[in-house]
Amino acid sequence: MELWFLGTSAGMPIANRNVTAIALQMPQNRGTFWMFDCGEGTQHQLLRSPFRLSRLEKLFITHLHGDHLFGLPGLLSSRSSLGGTEPLDLYGPPGLREFIEATLRISETHLGYPLRIHEIEEGTVCEDDFFTVEAAKLDHRIDSFGYRITELPRTGVLNTELLAKLGVPSGPLYGSLKSGRDITLEDGRIIRSAEVVGNPLPGRIIVVLGDTKPCDSAIELARGADLLVHEATFANDLVDKAGEYGHSTTLQAAETAQAAGVKWLLITHFSSRYSSEDLASLEAESRIVFSHTDAAVELKPYAIPRTTARNSD
Amino acid sequence: MELWFLGTSAGMPIANRNVTAIALQMPQNRGTFWMFDCGEGTQHQLLRSPFRLSRLEKLFITHLHGDHLFGLPGLLSSRSSLGGTEPLDLYGPPGLREFIEATLRISETHLGYPLRIHEIEEGTVCEDDFFTVEAAKLDHRIDSFGYRITELPRTGVLNTELLAKLGVPSGPLYGSLKSGRDITLEDGRIIRSAEVVGNPLPGRIIVVLGDTKPCDSAIELARGADLLVHEATFANDLVDKAGEYGHSTTLQAAETAQAAGVKWLLITHFSSRYSSEDLASLEAESRIVFSHTDAAVELKPYAIPRTTARNSD
Repeated sequence: MELWFLGTSAGMPIANRNVTAIALQMPQNRGTFWMFDCGEGTQHQLLRSPFRLSRLEKLFITHLHGDHLFGLPGLLSSRSSLGGTEPLDLYGPPGLREFIEATLRISETHLGYPLRIHEIEEGTVCEDDFFTVEAAKLDHRIDSFGYRITELPRTGVLNTELLAKLGVPSGPLYGSLKSGRDITLEDGRIIRSAEVVGNPLPGRIIVVLGDTKPCDSAIELARGADLLVHEATFANDLVDKAGEYGHSTTLQAAETAQAAGVKWLLITHFSSRYSSEDLASLEAESRIVFSHTDAAVELKPYAIPRTTARNSD
Repeated sequence: MELWFLGTSAGMPIANRNVTAIALQMPQNRGTFWMFDCGEGTQHQLLRSPFRLSRLEKLFITHLHGDHLFGLPGLLSSRSSLGGTEPLDLYGPPGLREFIEATLRISETHLGYPLRIHEIEEGTVCEDDFFTVEAAKLDHRIDSFGYRITELPRTGVLNTELLAKLGVPSGPLYGSLKSGRDITLEDGRIIRSAEVVGNPLPGRIIVVLGDTKPCDSAIELARGADLLVHEATFANDLVDKAGEYGHSTTLQAAETAQAAGVKWLLITHFSSRYSSEDLASLEAESRIVFSHTDAAVELKPYAIPRTTARNSD
């Protein structure tokens, strides 16, 4: 499970940093991937990543400001040109449908795949056999959402060596044991699921927030997450400006991470006034409050481990 | 007078080549510049050029396909963020106003300068003391325009040394002579303008076409131009595909240049199937018909000389 930042700049691109987009790759999804936000130039950044746009499966927009949105028409169009034929699910705040329909209609862009646009509210946004995605409204100048992706726990591994030793024939009985049911063999012996199935693998929780001021709903949505992606548009000396524009500072992002009890904080969405060289000092500011913080670097894979072992680094 | 290609790829970006945009810098415009088309990522390309987005003065859109259009909302927004306060004139086919108004409204983008949107028809699009811009409709899948920029001739240089020798006092008489009027001095001598003013400097004619199949109106618009910018989406072996999609091949672009009697042809808008390494062979194909052809290279200045001396190169 890996997260890639395709853009970490707020408002507009600068040399070496693009506007917001995040790609998420999960092993369950067999080569497809998800994305969060789609600033202008996101399709260009994908060309520099291992992701193939035609395999994009779901795209979640946090809010409709241009630096999170304006790459969408081009990306949707190129997904078609690059041979994407599978449906694409697009989630985002009300207004998203009008934006897509207007831009594609006026440019006479025809997509070679079904585009399913979902204008979201708070609550469960989508779920499948592996993940649940919930959304909550944050506190920004316009409607801005955070997404909480919960990976469902996976049942433990079947101890096939032990089963062979116990004389359990492979087949449907294995399935019963794996799904937690005890079985009785023909000779009357009872085999308990718990004896032959390892511990379940806990699911991971990833929370990606849109632009926001510090707010209770951000803390609630991020509660106990393995990874929180939080904007830190400004350094702490610009806390007044952050408030005025509905943004957070490095310290405020860290305070939310701490209050929510998350395990790892990645800060991003840095004002274009900050060059790549400034990011270390932004990171250091956050770490004063929440030590396990990293300032996101573009086009670098962030692996999200299943355990909490990374807390020790 | 310099032309810069900010993108030479048709349809979508590839590694090292972006979608269409062209910047034009003229000495008369004192540090401001004009642009033609604005594919996604144009503002990113400007960051790699000497142009300052805040100094963009006029922007001409040839047609509303996404690869010529989708960079516009982000570019307009960033021009504001970068301190552009002077008015911006935006020209393009009907539908342009709705595209801009919808994208800026939904994203709640507020510009800190007057944006003047002009939906064009064929004929004169704009004119000032130095240039006239005319448009003509071409032959593409949707309305597509070409622009003809005519630089007005500049009056010749006043020979002030000779005037001093003749005893003509500097002042209003100089202006009269420079503007072509003969004068009579107090002692009755007549000074003829033609004797003291050098030859006028001829104006240049630049023609930038939108996507098009070969058509008479392209030839008419380009007639006698110093420089013609023409799409060559496909090599000649794909002439059928070019026709099907309303595009031109390398040979067809060259045939239009020849029929119009232009002095120089720059081909661009190469299909994303062609890498940078393929451009030399596309150029070679055009040169079979029209020898003074160059395949446009991104982020390289093309100086447009006032004389026809470059014909000899």
